[in-house]
Amino acid sequence: MSRSQQFLSDNAAAVHPRVWNAMRAADEADAPYDGDALSQALDARFGELFGRECAVLWTATGTSANCLALATLCPPHGGVVCHREAHIEMDEAGAPGFYLHGAKLMLAEGAKDSGGAKLTPDAIRAVIDPIRDDVHQVQPHAISVTQASEYGRSYRPAELEAIGALAQERGLGLHVDGARFGNAVAFLGCSPAEAVGPAQALSFGFVKNGGMGAEAIVFFDPALADVARYRRKRAGHLQSKGRYLAAQVLAMLEGDLWLDNARAANAAAAEIAGACGERLMHAVEANEVFVRCTAVEREALRAQGFGFYDWGEDAARFVTAWNSDSQAASALARAIAAL
Amino acid sequence: MSRSQQFLSDNAAAVHPRVWNAMRAADEADAPYDGDALSQALDARFGELFGRECAVLWTATGTSANCLALATLCPPHGGVVCHREAHIEMDEAGAPGFYLHGAKLMLAEGAKDSGGAKLTPDAIRAVIDPIRDDVHQVQPHAISVTQASEYGRSYRPAELEAIGALAQERGLGLHVDGARFGNAVAFLGCSPAEAVGPAQALSFGFVKNGGMGAEAIVFFDPALADVARYRRKRAGHLQSKGRYLAAQVLAMLEGDLWLDNARAANAAAAEIAGACGERLMHAVEANEVFVRCTAVEREALRAQGFGFYDWGEDAARFVTAWNSDSQAASALARAIAAL
Amino acid sequence: MSRSQQFLSDNAAAVHPRVWNAMRAADEADAPYDGDALSQALDARFGELFGRECAVLWTATGTSANCLALATLCPPHGGVVCHREAHIEMDEAGAPGFYLHGAKLMLAEGAKDSGGAKLTPDAIRAVIDPIRDDVHQVQPHAISVTQASEYGRSYRPAELEAIGALAQERGLGLHVDGARFGNAVAFLGCSPAEAVGPAQALSFGFVKNGGMGAEAIVFFDPALADVARYRRKRAGHLQSKGRYLAAQVLAMLEGDLWLDNARAANAAAAEIAGACGERLMHAVEANEVFVRCTAVEREALRAQGFGFYDWGEDAARFVTAWNSDSQAASALARAIAAL
Amino acid sequence: MSRSQQFLSDNAAAVHPRVWNAMRAADEADAPYDGDALSQALDARFGELFGRECAVLWTATGTSANCLALATLCPPHGGVVCHREAHIEMDEAGAPGFYLHGAKLMLAEGAKDSGGAKLTPDAIRAVIDPIRDDVHQVQPHAISVTQASEYGRSYRPAELEAIGALAQERGLGLHVDGARFGNAVAFLGCSPAEAVGPAQALSFGFVKNGGMGAEAIVFFDPALADVARYRRKRAGHLQSKGRYLAAQVLAMLEGDLWLDNARAANAAAAEIAGACGERLMHAVEANEVFVRCTAVEREALRAQGFGFYDWGEDAARFVTAWNSDSQAASALARAIAAL
Repeated sequence: MSRSQQFLSDNAAAVHPRVWNAMRAADEADAPYDGDALSQALDARFGELFGRECAVLWTATGTSANCLALATLCPPHGGVVCHREAHIEMDEAGAPGFYLHGAKLMLAEGAKDSGGAKLTPDAIRAVIDPIRDDVHQVQPHAISVTQASEYGRSYRPAELEAIGALAQERGLGLHVDGARFGNAVAFLGCSPAEAVGPAQALSFGFVKNGGMGAEAIVFFDPALADVARYRRKRAGHLQSKGRYLAAQVLAMLEGDLWLDNARAANAAAAEIAGACGERLMHAVEANEVFVRCTAVEREALRAQGFGFYDWGEDAARFVTAWNSDSQAASALARAIAAL
Repeated sequence: MSRSQQFLSDNAAAVHPRVWNAMRAADEADAPYDGDALSQALDARFGELFGRECAVLWTATGTSANCLALATLCPPHGGVVCHREAHIEMDEAGAPGFYLHGAKLMLAEGAKDSGGAKLTPDAIRAVIDPIRDDVHQVQPHAISVTQASEYGRSYRPAELEAIGALAQERGLGLHVDGARFGNAVAFLGCSPAEAVGPAQALSFGFVKNGGMGAEAIVFFDPALADVARYRRKRAGHLQSKGRYLAAQVLAMLEGDLWLDNARAANAAAAEIAGACGERLMHAVEANEVFVRCTAVEREALRAQGFGFYDWGEDAARFVTAWNSDSQAASALARAIAAL
Repeated sequence: MSRSQQFLSDNAAAVHPRVWNAMRAADEADAPYDGDALSQALDARFGELFGRECAVLWTATGTSANCLALATLCPPHGGVVCHREAHIEMDEAGAPGFYLHGAKLMLAEGAKDSGGAKLTPDAIRAVIDPIRDDVHQVQPHAISVTQASEYGRSYRPAELEAIGALAQERGLGLHVDGARFGNAVAFLGCSPAEAVGPAQALSFGFVKNGGMGAEAIVFFDPALADVARYRRKRAGHLQSKGRYLAAQVLAMLEGDLWLDNARAANAAAAEIAGACGERLMHAVEANEVFVRCTAVEREALRAQGFGFYDWGEDAARFVTAWNSDSQAASALARAIAAL
Repeated sequence: MSRSQQFLSDNAAAVHPRVWNAMRAADEADAPYDGDALSQALDARFGELFGRECAVLWTATGTSANCLALATLCPPHGGVVCHREAHIEMDEAGAPGFYLHGAKLMLAEGAKDSGGAKLTPDAIRAVIDPIRDDVHQVQPHAISVTQASEYGRSYRPAELEAIGALAQERGLGLHVDGARFGNAVAFLGCSPAEAVGPAQALSFGFVKNGGMGAEAIVFFDPALADVARYRRKRAGHLQSKGRYLAAQVLAMLEGDLWLDNARAANAAAAEIAGACGERLMHAVEANEVFVRCTAVEREALRAQGFGFYDWGEDAARFVTAWNSDSQAASALARAIAAL
């Protein structure tokens, strides 16, 4: 990554060498699509990780992972409750509308200010209670939360349990968008099972964390995977050389590479955050740092070679990656402190 | 590829070393999604190849390439005329229904016996003329042909021109499913432009021909690409590290690797075909060989270690690939001759 | 109906006077949508008719009735097995594709010649067995039969039981398109329950049988009606003055008007059929008569003022209605006999 | 309408006697579907009304009218800008998502307080400018305004011209939801053409204004009607006895019954509004009156026999209809004044 790109996003970082090696080793096919030994090994491998039965499908992108998972939880005439700033609402170009055939994203406000785009049971109830059983209104069928959230906040296990309890009470499915699931687990210091809570489906992201083009949709209810399998094919996401995707995922799990990579990214973010003081907009609980700063200040940082996105008029977003250069992170921290 | 897989399909063959090298070289990102220099180079590169303006999008699979292309040519309430045995009808698990929102595949018979799943203007007219302007019937908006066809037959340029003339007369779009486009060009010995005819969109396949997970949707009408761009994102096919897909495609075009690979596969198929005599069901005009043989004969071939698919009760399908072992092909040819 | 329209179709016949009276009487609203007393009475009224629990929704058209019913039985990625000449395939302009989000109609051949577009368990198996559990192929989720069929043939109760047994064995739903259900019941002389067999959903047609614009979707599994209720609204078929539709349906049931009307139409068809001898293409088991005749003969009939549709090159279709003029039917019978 | 229903809504009012007569007179069919003389007369009749070429389709409901119109203006991957409280967003159970295949409603705030759910060019720009040409965001393809608005406010011709100018500048279609179009025209005292502005499509409502189950989709661009024609069939809204819908619409236009009915409803609303003083939430520019009042006050009104909907915690909505009893309206006015 060129320096000017360094803190723009984690989604364009280079592929980890161990992932490359695993892919190359997969050249010797033993079956097309997902019939190969690597793809077939995923269920058991994730089962170990989560300590319960899993049915796992690879797919190339986080958007397809989210949408394939949600399509198993919500029919076309239903709705999915998510935060107003959830990635599925803000950044997927209407993909949920496509995959769920016009199902509605029911936007909740979340806890303002301190929440960082995290949902709460109260915020969910505020959306679904007033329209309950009204045939003129889309009815909820699922809830989707992002772990870590779009502002780099991580749900505590108890928070997920509370949302899951509401979901169960109302007969709703629960999905976790884990594009940065590794970063959340690394921050929380809990088990993967605790970090996903009572969800039926998890989009477990690897692309932002050292992979090339492979995410895992982890179903904790295998019946859902049978639906997703047909939908994946139907969406053109059943790659004929799926072993190269399985190889990426397995390499990431091997020796907890996913966790090491996430820790590295989090550490860089933490270092930057430590320099922000009052400028910090959200507690840094993953690998994103949102910093209040003026346009002039952003210009000053860019003049020093740092790359990042503006976040509205008065802030900047810095994202670290598994391969963030520690010197660059330190330099950025110093630069922010000196603003 | 293990020997038992050898002639099952070309869609699981290993990745060509030059493709690997190109991917690895793409590690240094300069932008996410398709903002990188490699992705941006595709339009011009294909423009050279086809001798006219092209707008090109990479996507991971042939199914998504076909469906994204067709979705630009046919609205949800319309229909796409294709052969009854077209891949989009037979093997994509309803993907066109998903991408085109329930648009109908209007199945034409094609020229029986000798046709090999190729469409003709007459066959198309037989489908669309009887229901013309009848509001109770889905109306056609596009035609899709497969080059080379599902039976390894290649459309001659004049055949494509004739279909294109009908399409233009009726205001229909024309799409070419080129999962094995390279094999068709290699067989026909014509230019890529001649092999695609007056189509608006081509799914140019690389995965079966030495790539890993990258096809090119080539639009000869750039306005269609602008539609497809949004639909690709919406379908979860805009990979964040798209440079690795662009790298594959560019490597395949570099030094005409695509053509060399296709020629190698075709040559192996031709050798096998040469041994088949009367058993041959379809002229071999690409890299597929359909051979009449009994269950006992197929068993005998499998006992010798050859892998292939049964084709109904009385036939077998052998597919060669860019890396088909020439000794294996010769051995298979001898084994068939000895049946 | 003007004489020139007389045998074209039953779907444009006048509204029965008792239906008019019932609609007019519904002017006094007690609630919008389906909250009125008439709409609320449907469940119990059909429950009596079928001798078991029913949940019933009115809708304006047979197409919407069929599609709303099927959408409760088949997910977007699934398929519905129907006869190649089923109305849902031939005459609804792709409505199932729209309502079922691209789900596939899986076309069965039915029993040729004598079958009259009726399905059989064998015909269904021929479609679904070869692709079983193949992720590249749309999997069946439901079966739809038409009672009476598109050629005016009626399924015997035992035939429906056999199809229902197959459906249950394979976990498929069963839907009956009963656009002419009354005609079938009138012909079979059995109970409505016997004529619908073990289906989960019935589109019970009234429009062709004396109604204006109201069909009933009868669910024998109330949980399906809860899904259909939201889908009906979503499809714009929840009319705000639904009492006028409920009134039509109730008037048709009152005093078995539906059965009387169907008997009248069947009788007229039987009279015509009696004059056809060898010309008859299908046994007349409802209110449609398919007659072999040349273009010259058809011209002769039209010269005498009879209205009907050509059925291909060599046949004509005559449809009688609840209000078919008995003199006209007799005259037509004589005219056919005299050909 | 029973007294307890009186001010709940205009959508359940009785059918006007002249509409009944026209329907009954349509019993004599001359063609099914929309081939009859009445349906065929609509284009010319609306052409006279609007002073320009029109292509008009009847449909049973406002929801289907809106969605069929919008589906001609916005592709599945696009978006429709509407007010956050627009009927298509709030009360159609996701119908736009169904008809537009997951296209997104892009919610604008409108002018707060005084706006009454009316859009302004600035409010539209605030939605569409920040995401312009961003492939990760749904792009707008159309704007939909409601005339009169959900709060009974009417767009002045100049306001529509301004929105239309923005639409044209950005290449967006413009649709008018005219469920209460008659009420708006009656209030504005302008021509129908002025009240619809430069829209391409109008949902012209008759059901709330004396019809039974027929609205008109008026296309000012006939090419759009050709698309909508197929989509109407596909949505199951092409009724086989369409003459009964055409008859309703024609009867409403005959002698300006639509305008007389709307004036009557508006007059009743104006009388009520005149008694509200400071309680009035929105200027009454059609037939809806939103009144600030406490739960205790609402209880008092209901105790006097008045029917209406609560509007949140602190207000009530009163809707008058073509047949609102003038004594009841006066009584309500007095009752509100006496609160």
